[in-house]
Amino acid sequence: MKIALLGTGTVGRALARGLARCGHEVVIGTREPEATAGRDLGAETFAQWLVASPGVTLAAASEAAAVGDLVVNATNGEASLTALAGAGEAALAGKVLLDVANPLDFSNGFPPTLSVCNNDSLAEQIQRAFPSVLVVKSLNTVTADVMVNPAALGAAGGAMFVAGDDATAKAVVSQLLTDLGWQSVVDLGGLAAARGMEMYLPLWLRLMQATGTAEFNIAIVRREG
Amino acid sequence: MKIALLGTGTVGRALARGLARCGHEVVIGTREPEATAGRDLGAETFAQWLVASPGVTLAAASEAAAVGDLVVNATNGEASLTALAGAGEAALAGKVLLDVANPLDFSNGFPPTLSVCNNDSLAEQIQRAFPSVLVVKSLNTVTADVMVNPAALGAAGGAMFVAGDDATAKAVVSQLLTDLGWQSVVDLGGLAAARGMEMYLPLWLRLMQATGTAEFNIAIVRREG
Repeated sequence: MKIALLGTGTVGRALARGLARCGHEVVIGTREPEATAGRDLGAETFAQWLVASPGVTLAAASEAAAVGDLVVNATNGEASLTALAGAGEAALAGKVLLDVANPLDFSNGFPPTLSVCNNDSLAEQIQRAFPSVLVVKSLNTVTADVMVNPAALGAAGGAMFVAGDDATAKAVVSQLLTDLGWQSVVDLGGLAAARGMEMYLPLWLRLMQATGTAEFNIAIVRREG
Repeated sequence: MKIALLGTGTVGRALARGLARCGHEVVIGTREPEATAGRDLGAETFAQWLVASPGVTLAAASEAAAVGDLVVNATNGEASLTALAGAGEAALAGKVLLDVANPLDFSNGFPPTLSVCNNDSLAEQIQRAFPSVLVVKSLNTVTADVMVNPAALGAAGGAMFVAGDDATAKAVVSQLLTDLGWQSVVDLGGLAAARGMEMYLPLWLRLMQATGTAEFNIAIVRREG
């Protein structure tokens, strides 16, 4: 399918390549495509990265959102509402929106706190701001490389969660997760469950420090039978 | 060792029996021992439960805390500070305190929210209220039966976390965890990491709903080698 992906950072680029590798046509949406294309990524420019990423193109956010059958929010959690507003409500209307962002607030250093939590979540904020969009939360509980290559971890990658109020939208996202290699997709229910998924981040950050790597995930173990 | 255990609910009773089974002498501390002894637990009274629990006795909270080499806080998270104050600062002074409670607020129904989170935690509140106590957070991420019988789950029970500012206190608690059958104990660092452990609860609650059982845990899966 045609996927509009908002976010040009590590997560956005990893997801773009991962989804394109599955046969999807990915259009990365950004505020100023020319400035993004010229950005220095260290070993290469964004334009060079694009050339080496078959199936991935770059466009203005509004243009990307307009052509996408599904929209992925892979922007910084603190900037997500602004980025989605930039894509435009009309272009997003009625579409499935996969939200992988975390509302991390680094203003007081590491580890960050959450800018929204407990009785609300970023995913619900997005849903309220764009009522006709079918928001599904997923993939926010693992690092970018794991999102698109769970098989690299033991135990079939562990568990991946989905939450959303629309069952069809969740089925569409679950299929994308299967495309990416996720074997254990756990439906946590309505979008309010995104609170739990986002509030897991403080534990994830401590686990990253304790294990010395971001390339990990959690698997559910339970009493047999 | 002699363990003072505050909390007479499901978690307290499961932990008392589990720790006694490991050879520890457990004194359950409560505000009014006689009233507790007469409490109807459904199939039996608390006094009958005590008789069937070798190695477990009941005493006033202050008395229990005074004789314990280590104190376990297994009270309701909302009542923990009051219960510990009832045990008395003098009796707790300088002792290791294993805090297994979660600050769950059920006032708005299920699922509960957290009464403290993000930039603070119940464990840190306890530490601030009783500065000379060596607070270690652990076991709050699983249901009572799993706390004392992790082997009943697959994958050796999954991961158990510890957080605390005192390394010796963490070593003492880690040994208790080993006694209980925990094979994968993950040290998350200082007591501030308890924020992550407590903020995992909203995800745990959704997972309980999704899996249809409280008898589960999470295991860490990571890239090999």
